[in-house]
Amino acid sequence: MRDIKMYCTKCGKEYPIQNVHPRCGECNEPLEVQLVKEGKIKEGNPLRQTMLERYSDFFPFGEVNNDLSLHEGFTPLVPSPKIAKKVGVKKVYFKTESQNPTWSFKDRGTLAGIQHAYSLGYKKVGAVSTGNMAVSVAAYGQRAGFETFILVDKNIPEEKLNPVAIYGANLIKVDGDYGNLYYESLEIGKKYGIYFINSDVTYRVEGSKTIAFEICEQLNFEVPDYVIVPTSAGGNIRGILKGFEEFKACGLIDKIPKMICAQASGCSPIFNAFRDDKENIERVIEHETIAHGIENPFPPSGNEVLRKIRENGGICVAVTDEEIVTAQKEMAEEGIFGQPESAVPLASIKKLVAEGCLKDTDTVTCIVTGSGLKYTAAFKRHDLKAYDCKIENLSDFIGKFE
Amino acid sequence: MRDIKMYCTKCGKEYPIQNVHPRCGECNEPLEVQLVKEGKIKEGNPLRQTMLERYSDFFPFGEVNNDLSLHEGFTPLVPSPKIAKKVGVKKVYFKTESQNPTWSFKDRGTLAGIQHAYSLGYKKVGAVSTGNMAVSVAAYGQRAGFETFILVDKNIPEEKLNPVAIYGANLIKVDGDYGNLYYESLEIGKKYGIYFINSDVTYRVEGSKTIAFEICEQLNFEVPDYVIVPTSAGGNIRGILKGFEEFKACGLIDKIPKMICAQASGCSPIFNAFRDDKENIERVIEHETIAHGIENPFPPSGNEVLRKIRENGGICVAVTDEEIVTAQKEMAEEGIFGQPESAVPLASIKKLVAEGCLKDTDTVTCIVTGSGLKYTAAFKRHDLKAYDCKIENLSDFIGKFE
Repeated sequence: MRDIKMYCTKCGKEYPIQNVHPRCGECNEPLEVQLVKEGKIKEGNPLRQTMLERYSDFFPFGEVNNDLSLHEGFTPLVPSPKIAKKVGVKKVYFKTESQNPTWSFKDRGTLAGIQHAYSLGYKKVGAVSTGNMAVSVAAYGQRAGFETFILVDKNIPEEKLNPVAIYGANLIKVDGDYGNLYYESLEIGKKYGIYFINSDVTYRVEGSKTIAFEICEQLNFEVPDYVIVPTSAGGNIRGILKGFEEFKACGLIDKIPKMICAQASGCSPIFNAFRDDKENIERVIEHETIAHGIENPFPPSGNEVLRKIRENGGICVAVTDEEIVTAQKEMAEEGIFGQPESAVPLASIKKLVAEGCLKDTDTVTCIVTGSGLKYTAAFKRHDLKAYDCKIENLSDFIGKFE
Repeated sequence: MRDIKMYCTKCGKEYPIQNVHPRCGECNEPLEVQLVKEGKIKEGNPLRQTMLERYSDFFPFGEVNNDLSLHEGFTPLVPSPKIAKKVGVKKVYFKTESQNPTWSFKDRGTLAGIQHAYSLGYKKVGAVSTGNMAVSVAAYGQRAGFETFILVDKNIPEEKLNPVAIYGANLIKVDGDYGNLYYESLEIGKKYGIYFINSDVTYRVEGSKTIAFEICEQLNFEVPDYVIVPTSAGGNIRGILKGFEEFKACGLIDKIPKMICAQASGCSPIFNAFRDDKENIERVIEHETIAHGIENPFPPSGNEVLRKIRENGGICVAVTDEEIVTAQKEMAEEGIFGQPESAVPLASIKKLVAEGCLKDTDTVTCIVTGSGLKYTAAFKRHDLKAYDCKIENLSDFIGKFE
């Protein structure tokens, strides 16, 4: 490990880089690795590199173990002139994280976490998750040959359980207050030497930086005006912003995009605090949204996201399930089928244009967090059509579409 | 379009490159674009290119329309030293086509087909498919703004219908002999100006070449001894072999890997003909396999695959559903969760090692054709486990794993 520090995002207290516990002992706010101010992209063909190799200057690992990688990242940035025109902004890009090894953005942070665990000699990893992160940690933990613990909610539907179980990790359905398990798992981890790579832990945030790095490369270092991130725990948006900050500090880009923290109206603790001009988020008691992946009533990085969005001049926004479902279909009709939460950015653009926050001169990048195949219950919300036709009438039937 | 010809794979009859009908008027065998013998990879960062740009020398399009692309291809090549050791070969790589925009290899051929349709001025496209190709053509057709026709089998289960329907193409459930629809669709296409980008049409085969191109780049132009391709219609394996042949003809690689055509025992017309030393495949009357994506009783490129495999010194092999299910789990435990047909290559390695056809000095690349999320009914074939635990007992429970 290189000589880099960690610090508390709120009080600034310093911690050693080997630190695994993700929160400050003083103020219980999340820790963060010090900003990298000197570094460059490792030249070479991305087809022959892993993301931790290409961006190794921006990670404290020293040499990376490529056997841990499933060759995550380097996902497309797909432009949509059609949608940009329709919604009234200059350009819209979709960063399709749905094309990662386990079909969500989580793989980036999982790799960074697994690499950190490996570099510290851990042989056990875990995660508290019932969604994308559970799948991702199960896959990477098993690949690394680590004893892997995935703690899911006892009420997890089979549709979500099986795609985790197939990887063969120790899968535990936990009966009790699942909401507190994030904090409890950190204690269990300490006790038994299990590295819990949970939602917003320090190295997961580090992994998310690579989304920003790639956007910079893909746009030839002319960054978009806005990046919209569906936000749950808050780790991903923190990481993406940090990525832009590091590339700026290293002179690779001239400006930092404004970040838009996008939530579902049915569970929007960060948006609520932003709107009400509060310093801290408050737990949402009753919540319901189709965007389960971001249905987090008390995001562990919520306060830090608020601080960062304000400092960055960014925006918080919340959109309804109806708006999400409409946006999901519009994206599919452009060839991009994301989970409901992945449609939150497009729904947010429309809202923010209507409110005058986004203009027709703005370039916007939307983070497509995961594959639409991950949550097939959403199909029920769409009015999907198919025609029936006997084969002998097929030619005539198709002729009618002229 | 550049000055390149098409010819019949059997009788050699010449056709113009604008030709859309994929079969020879004389012998009804598939047509193929002439081998490219001069070309190089376009330098540049793959993060800022589409695959048709990077490999444009190998396509007859002239300038490509990048708006048609969803940034398919450039998928990982993931090594697995663990599996190589277990099965007894030198190296195993998995080419994870499951990370394409619609999560299967089909997107490469679809883009090439759409690009060809566009360059000829078509405004309508279609596909006869109940699986990955239906999803892929629906996505790309809609993105292009083409009138898109997807002809599925009337008995398609909802699990497969909805992921096609979400893209909003004209979806037609056809009641009748679905097996003949491949040929009938070509007639309907002629009549109404619809470009059917079916399973093994000429440009779909062209698109598959890029799998070979990338494998060459990813292995630094030291090609593997064998490439194993789950084979249905036969278009993908034809394209991959052609890709290696073109890179060899252009001096980019020194040798061509031996191709292994891998099928499921429950439906293995190409393997049967190879084993029985026949010139032509015979239709399989009764067929059943968990690997639905390659359950093709009468592959339109079957005879050509036989010719090419013999010329190439390759192998045909068939594996049982039980072997497929076992291999699917072993891959998942390495972090790679593919459809059942995507596990056919690994099952084939084990069989071929046992038969002495593959040796411990051999390097093998397996094509992972599509995401395991595409066929969740396969979960039933696995004995998937989860523990139940009350939250107050969790720490003790996890402690027992020490």
